[in-house]
Amino acid sequence: MITVLAGGVGAARMLAGLMQVTDPSELTAIVNTGDDLVLHGLEISPDLDTVTYTLAGAIDPERGWGLAGETWQAMTTLGRYGGENWFNLGDQDLGTHLYRTARRHAGATLTEVTAEIAAAWGLGLRLLPMTDDVVRTMVTVEDEGEIGFQQYFVGRQHAVAIESVRFDGVESCAPGPDVLAALAEAETVVIAPSNPIVSIGPVLAVPGIRSALEKRRDDVVAVSPIIAGAALKGPADAMLAALGHESSAVGIARIYAEVAGTLVIDEADAHLAAAIEAEGVRCVVAPTIMSTPERSASLGRIVLDSIGSPA
Amino acid sequence: MITVLAGGVGAARMLAGLMQVTDPSELTAIVNTGDDLVLHGLEISPDLDTVTYTLAGAIDPERGWGLAGETWQAMTTLGRYGGENWFNLGDQDLGTHLYRTARRHAGATLTEVTAEIAAAWGLGLRLLPMTDDVVRTMVTVEDEGEIGFQQYFVGRQHAVAIESVRFDGVESCAPGPDVLAALAEAETVVIAPSNPIVSIGPVLAVPGIRSALEKRRDDVVAVSPIIAGAALKGPADAMLAALGHESSAVGIARIYAEVAGTLVIDEADAHLAAAIEAEGVRCVVAPTIMSTPERSASLGRIVLDSIGSPA
Repeated sequence: MITVLAGGVGAARMLAGLMQVTDPSELTAIVNTGDDLVLHGLEISPDLDTVTYTLAGAIDPERGWGLAGETWQAMTTLGRYGGENWFNLGDQDLGTHLYRTARRHAGATLTEVTAEIAAAWGLGLRLLPMTDDVVRTMVTVEDEGEIGFQQYFVGRQHAVAIESVRFDGVESCAPGPDVLAALAEAETVVIAPSNPIVSIGPVLAVPGIRSALEKRRDDVVAVSPIIAGAALKGPADAMLAALGHESSAVGIARIYAEVAGTLVIDEADAHLAAAIEAEGVRCVVAPTIMSTPERSASLGRIVLDSIGSPA
Repeated sequence: MITVLAGGVGAARMLAGLMQVTDPSELTAIVNTGDDLVLHGLEISPDLDTVTYTLAGAIDPERGWGLAGETWQAMTTLGRYGGENWFNLGDQDLGTHLYRTARRHAGATLTEVTAEIAAAWGLGLRLLPMTDDVVRTMVTVEDEGEIGFQQYFVGRQHAVAIESVRFDGVESCAPGPDVLAALAEAETVVIAPSNPIVSIGPVLAVPGIRSALEKRRDDVVAVSPIIAGAALKGPADAMLAALGHESSAVGIARIYAEVAGTLVIDEADAHLAAAIEAEGVRCVVAPTIMSTPERSASLGRIVLDSIGSPA
């Protein structure tokens, strides 16, 4: 069994790759829910939906989020009223939020609803929210103070300087019912190339998860989301720098050093391998840009082979 | 000033007619909210929306409810999950429910949100929900027991026999903030040709409304929703019969006798005028089928002229 700590887009591609090289029924993803929000009364789980839609082959390939063939009629009406429409909700996508909200109001846990949605899309792997409790990633930004993650990420298009990040509610949350077992039983744990601060950070902050990884650090492999100093997508690079980390594969190695014995970095960063090993982290160099299904599969194979093989 | 007690479709046409023959700023509608429901976490007010969309000229002319040019993508996704999709929510229409729900969660009253939505559609009249509190029309149907009004009306397509109707919460609700003033200040009060049991019934059951009408019964004119024994639309006729009323203009006269001094009936029922007057209700005979804007306007004129004029 393989268990993957996952954020959104990068994790979805990593999972798509792993599903090509291993039996999906042996694959579990523990997904960040710190980005979740309630908007217009609807319960929205962006990372869970991005992973689901991507693995279902239903994601919009150009936007990288939301469903292909999406329409925006509800947003147009909302705009007529001057409603809060900074967070775009497509008409098809709304059906997912309606379902999740109805089921949650009827007493189902997020773990249960997530499994139902994944089954409806025919996904063969297991998707687990990191927790069924409410955790909210809060970002303090210049001149404005603390705002919700989606207000920063979508509302401000992550174009404002950040000062700090915290995960509201995480200390008192419980890991989802199968989360710790999925970590204990996994042969290999993969940390997907997601934002280490706001995608993997909340997952590692859930009580019990970090220590579970520390205990079996040699079985944990992370994939660097930073290539040649930059994130392929999103604000990970600027965020690392703003929070005093080095925006490089070496910076990633330092962040994950206690939980991951191995780091897979891109060929463009091959010259950093020695510096990473100097941090006490085994280093594997590979093509990590998952621009096609074949490249995702190839990286998936390398990630699984990396554990226990020489650097 | 003219104040109209209103349900959905029939009331919307009556209001459209009145708006052609009087200054809309002098017109107030007190609208039934007993049909309201919370579905998938969204706050839905079917009668308020039908009135708003109709008066905005945006209603779907064939269905008679919802918006013209509607699409159903959210419902399709919801269907994929096996979600509760007996109550069709169009994509454009969803924007209205998202807005209402967001504003309600932010602390706005239904009266405030209704005014905002009406203003956004450019409506010149004032729309008042009968109450800002939760009132739910509950219907006991054969073999099944008590269900919500929309489950009966939409879910069962009002094809099941009803045994009783009650308005849950109505005894303890307060009339909307301007409702009693709108009744006290009106020169004429009109009871629209809506279902007397489940559209006008809840409005009259709101504390203070029935007695306000009784006090000035001579200024109140009702329009019969029953023509030649049948309702033009909906289950009013079957419902009247099931609940022991006569499904005729005479039956309507009896139901409204204490609150309305005048009843406008259709030409097809002219032979019932004497029987209606025998109930102590003045009777005006007119063409009441509002199949065109001209006919609505003509009926509006007749309704306003009916007060104080000889039968």
